[in-house]
Amino acid sequence: MTTLVNVPYDKLKVGDTATYERTLTERDLILFATVSGDHNPIHVDETFASSSQFGERIAHGMWTGSLISAALAMVMPGPGGVYRSQELKFLLPVKINDTITVRLEVIEKSERTKCAIISTNVVNQNGKFVAKGKACVMPATDSVTIETAALPEVTITH
Amino acid sequence: MTTLVNVPYDKLKVGDTATYERTLTERDLILFATVSGDHNPIHVDETFASSSQFGERIAHGMWTGSLISAALAMVMPGPGGVYRSQELKFLLPVKINDTITVRLEVIEKSERTKCAIISTNVVNQNGKFVAKGKACVMPATDSVTIETAALPEVTITH
Repeated sequence: MTTLVNVPYDKLKVGDTATYERTLTERDLILFATVSGDHNPIHVDETFASSSQFGERIAHGMWTGSLISAALAMVMPGPGGVYRSQELKFLLPVKINDTITVRLEVIEKSERTKCAIISTNVVNQNGKFVAKGKACVMPATDSVTIETAALPEVTITH
Repeated sequence: MTTLVNVPYDKLKVGDTATYERTLTERDLILFATVSGDHNPIHVDETFASSSQFGERIAHGMWTGSLISAALAMVMPGPGGVYRSQELKFLLPVKINDTITVRLEVIEKSERTKCAIISTNVVNQNGKFVAKGKACVMPATDSVTIETAALPEVTITH
């Protein structure tokens, strides 16, 4: 378990940054296909993907979206925030063993809506943008500290 | 395995519609938390979530995003398309046993970019919008027929 601490609305400043990193595994491809229902072979069939334009399996674009969501929920503004909207452009494919870093930066705060506009750009291990976008999140107004849940074990049987 | 057939760019018409439906399970919550790394207890801890404003566990917003992605990849325009961008507003929480329908409608085609703008609105079993948005997808120019991949078994051990 990990302790998550939020950044409440009043403490969040324009220019604040945070990052969240994950490395894509074959397991991620199978789990994302299972949970979304998108069994397109470009994501999960090694033989099919090897003869595609990409030459190998690639992540579902929304796997990258899920990392942005995780970054906002776990890191900045963290727990208690309400995810209102997301704009996202997919720029490059993500392949197995690519290490993806979500870079968050607060670019605007609205006193009227109590929302923070946060840029959500995502780079790979070569510094190339795989996605760019921005999110609107309502951070919690109070301090929130929670423990992450312990998840049951997930096993993939080939 | 399922056979997927695409709608090539030239055959896709403004006004074309398609749907994609899934019912949220506890298993989906665990798998999405695992694959995204977002272990926030509001999604996966029944006790924690019962004392939250929602009264029970809710889906990660991007689970809904993943269904939109699946709808575009599997149904319309289907395989061979390139997912360029997505705008998404999250409107209502999704709870276990909620049946979610992604409604796609082609609202614009660009001859210059060969992109289709597709509205991606998502309703629950009560007809309430849980998300609204639109996607930009480049459908394949040719006919594409593929078999979905057979996925290995995913087991959750409590």
